[in-house]
Amino acid sequence: MEYVDEIRSLGNQLSFRGNIEVPSEVDKIVIAGMGGSGIAGMIFKDCYTKKPVTLVNSYNIPDFVDSSTLFVAISYSGNTEETLEATRKARKRGARIRAITTGGKLAEIVENAVIIPDGYQPRSAVGFLTVPLLRGFGLVDDSEIEITKKLLSGYDVSVDPYRKFADEMYSKQKIPVIFGTPGFGSVAYRWKTQFNENAKVLAYATSFPELNHNDTMALEGTYRKEEFYFFVLTHPLLEKEISNRIKITSDLCKIEITRVEGEGATQFSNLFTLIHKGDYISYYLAEKRGVDPRNVEIIEKLKRGLKGSV
Amino acid sequence: MEYVDEIRSLGNQLSFRGNIEVPSEVDKIVIAGMGGSGIAGMIFKDCYTKKPVTLVNSYNIPDFVDSSTLFVAISYSGNTEETLEATRKARKRGARIRAITTGGKLAEIVENAVIIPDGYQPRSAVGFLTVPLLRGFGLVDDSEIEITKKLLSGYDVSVDPYRKFADEMYSKQKIPVIFGTPGFGSVAYRWKTQFNENAKVLAYATSFPELNHNDTMALEGTYRKEEFYFFVLTHPLLEKEISNRIKITSDLCKIEITRVEGEGATQFSNLFTLIHKGDYISYYLAEKRGVDPRNVEIIEKLKRGLKGSV
Repeated sequence: MEYVDEIRSLGNQLSFRGNIEVPSEVDKIVIAGMGGSGIAGMIFKDCYTKKPVTLVNSYNIPDFVDSSTLFVAISYSGNTEETLEATRKARKRGARIRAITTGGKLAEIVENAVIIPDGYQPRSAVGFLTVPLLRGFGLVDDSEIEITKKLLSGYDVSVDPYRKFADEMYSKQKIPVIFGTPGFGSVAYRWKTQFNENAKVLAYATSFPELNHNDTMALEGTYRKEEFYFFVLTHPLLEKEISNRIKITSDLCKIEITRVEGEGATQFSNLFTLIHKGDYISYYLAEKRGVDPRNVEIIEKLKRGLKGSV
Repeated sequence: MEYVDEIRSLGNQLSFRGNIEVPSEVDKIVIAGMGGSGIAGMIFKDCYTKKPVTLVNSYNIPDFVDSSTLFVAISYSGNTEETLEATRKARKRGARIRAITTGGKLAEIVENAVIIPDGYQPRSAVGFLTVPLLRGFGLVDDSEIEITKKLLSGYDVSVDPYRKFADEMYSKQKIPVIFGTPGFGSVAYRWKTQFNENAKVLAYATSFPELNHNDTMALEGTYRKEEFYFFVLTHPLLEKEISNRIKITSDLCKIEITRVEGEGATQFSNLFTLIHKGDYISYYLAEKRGVDPRNVEIIEKLKRGLKGSV
């Protein structure tokens, strides 16, 4: 499968059936996952606020993890070191454990893990990794999925806007900085990581309104200002308050902020349409740079180095 | 008071008496705060994991906020729009509400708010803003505070190392990127915001081990690599695993990562010694750049702009 086909597959991934089973008696949720798998937990946290959700992206779990805790381990390979160790610790505390994975050790140690299709780069499998969680909690229904799939398939045949962004960034060698908005911080972070892993360029993410308390002071007069490319991720449901902040920030700090909009009438469709746009932009930036978007050799070398050193 | 005196005051701030009263019957904690005040909640979350802690840095509160929730509003001025609105919403849900502030509207709407000294820039008051929270939860004792104060006072008389970092960054117009480590993500973010607000330069923060799943792919071959200055914040309690990751990342990605160490035998002393070092570096970078570290006029203009536009 060509890498661009992995990107194109996002719509079909959303139809994946199989969701984690959510016990009714838990009162808090912990989701463990790193990088391309961890993003699923971040998206979930942006969508679900009925119980406290704590994200774990290290070896350690919070002290509060107990038998009333739902602990969801997400690892595409099933062999992510940090996630496996966190899962073993959660088991010792008696947590209710679920997993989303293609297999690996995680499928061995967690009963009834949701097994998703393999053969993708973990970060390309964001639909497979996220939908079982959203479905399990009843946060998305079939009609929303169908509408979102239709929107996504439109992008797949008309990629010129994404090429254009990539060309602009490439021609001036700009570092992308992505501004999120409330409920969409996960997508800003997703864009950052896709620029890192696909295009191999540094990238950073922050969010409105928090960035108005710090970044704003730098945006006007920082050195090297011309070397950054500022995106803001908006959507039709955006509060007027935040929309005003974006405009005023751009005016006061004298910066161009490129607005990229999600589509649809729900948070789900807006999240996934924005993810898809970012995936394409980072893909075309990789193409422009002549780097292989699939290559993550450095991360593999690092893992081997860690094994050798401990 | 000169701005550098505000920075120097950190040690004395740690002796502030007055802590929030923590009801025993709550089962989850929400802390609302933005920017320089919000950092207190982040530090707390790095230190306390006995109950789920959710940070709010927007107008909205999670659906789970109820009468079993401790809701702590932190705003130095007491007039932060986002925090006030979140607090009003929490009150409607029957949450147990506490506040840390110098006054303002927040002191009017929250009974028994902990009132801290005014006259500082909010971000300089990080000791006043954080200690009432840590003390309230029994996370720090007098002996730890005395030890930390002694360490901090040493830095105040020997600032050459911080000037040197600032000089290096300034001479090559470098953008600081700060790598945190587990339990110290709040300090990496604090450094970022201090570079933004004091020195008026863009700055970004990420953390080990998560950054090894994304940034690592960019660090070797990104364009504009020479324009960033990478710090990692370490401390004597750092796990060997993370220490290995730092070394291997530096070797594989062929980047220089400047290590800045905390001091002392506790997370508290390491957090605050690292904060203090970052404060000085950003202060001297402001001096080099000839910008007023105290000036936050853009943020004030933005607030006025928002009032005019809504």
